[in-house]
Amino acid sequence: MSLSASDPSPAPVIGASDPAAPRLILASASRSRAAVLRQAGLAALSEPAQVDEAEVKAGLKAEGAGAREIAEALAELKAQKVSRRRPGAIAIGADQMLECEKVWFDKPIDLEQAAAHLRALSGQTHRLISAVCVVRDGVRLWHHIAEARLTMRPLSEDFIADYLTAVGPAALSSVGAYQLEGLGAQLFTRVEGDYFTILGLPLLPLMDFLRNHGVIAT
Amino acid sequence: MSLSASDPSPAPVIGASDPAAPRLILASASRSRAAVLRQAGLAALSEPAQVDEAEVKAGLKAEGAGAREIAEALAELKAQKVSRRRPGAIAIGADQMLECEKVWFDKPIDLEQAAAHLRALSGQTHRLISAVCVVRDGVRLWHHIAEARLTMRPLSEDFIADYLTAVGPAALSSVGAYQLEGLGAQLFTRVEGDYFTILGLPLLPLMDFLRNHGVIAT
Repeated sequence: MSLSASDPSPAPVIGASDPAAPRLILASASRSRAAVLRQAGLAALSEPAQVDEAEVKAGLKAEGAGAREIAEALAELKAQKVSRRRPGAIAIGADQMLECEKVWFDKPIDLEQAAAHLRALSGQTHRLISAVCVVRDGVRLWHHIAEARLTMRPLSEDFIADYLTAVGPAALSSVGAYQLEGLGAQLFTRVEGDYFTILGLPLLPLMDFLRNHGVIAT
Repeated sequence: MSLSASDPSPAPVIGASDPAAPRLILASASRSRAAVLRQAGLAALSEPAQVDEAEVKAGLKAEGAGAREIAEALAELKAQKVSRRRPGAIAIGADQMLECEKVWFDKPIDLEQAAAHLRALSGQTHRLISAVCVVRDGVRLWHHIAEARLTMRPLSEDFIADYLTAVGPAALSSVGAYQLEGLGAQLFTRVEGDYFTILGLPLLPLMDFLRNHGVIAT
């Protein structure tokens, strides 16, 4: 899932910024991940890694990789690509996989597919697997994988149609066609896992790493 | 904790609204709880219950009540007060208690007290206990209590000062002086419990109740 698109102004960075601190770059075009960093007061540039995710996923799947391995590999690949272009910077890559009954779901490409995804997830518990990876000058410094489990209530066809009408194209911006902090909340009976993992960026362990390496204020 | 004050426009209500459905009233002046309902697409009026919370808490504490009992009692008291003024309406009352090492924390009254609260919570795990209660025509129809556990990292005096400077008066709008979806994220190493419980309104069980009683679309 992703954070609402409309977003308050950037939060101020805490503490005097150290001019020697390396630049943070989010290797992603994701507005919701950028919003997570910004709202937490982290000054990061966003730079899309332009990785062909579908191809990478298909290749790894053919080799028998699981959802966690794929999320981890994609997070690192994105960070590596941006790191190559940005010497000295801290490149943050992230990826999220949605798995339900051993099936993986990508972002829906249109509202018809969004409805199909909701039908498949209806009445089931699915996993959101969020991986984050930090790369500097081509070296992977750290990574982390976190999971959340979300249980969707049984959805009627009428509800799915009304929900997608109300949400509109925003349904296409998230795996699972939902934003938990928006109308998507109406889909669920139970949510286990932290907010940031659900948003696709395990923020708390990432900030632990950045603090331990003097990148953000302690 | 509370939801950011600046908030996108109301989410649309899902499905054709039933003219026979009772009116929803949030028995609270809390902007963050109102935002939780609005963003989930629930059309609720906000109407402060004007309960003297400090007096009720002190009285219940003197009688030996625990944090869960107090949260539950206050949630019901708020809903009852509004219900009396609004015949037929579904009055929703909510309350949140923060407990750390057997001490309860209210919203800080000024930035000095906010700093003292952060010093006390620093390096500790605290509980947020969120109660919600539904009353109609003076009858309690349903209630629910949920808990979250949050672990704050050890905070330096410098960090506390810089954090409160960056957050400003918003620190006074939440117990614990933090908003997890804002700069408050920098305080924590671990968060267990669902997002809505942390925000002070256990939304998913509340919506289950409202669906089961025909108040919102299924």
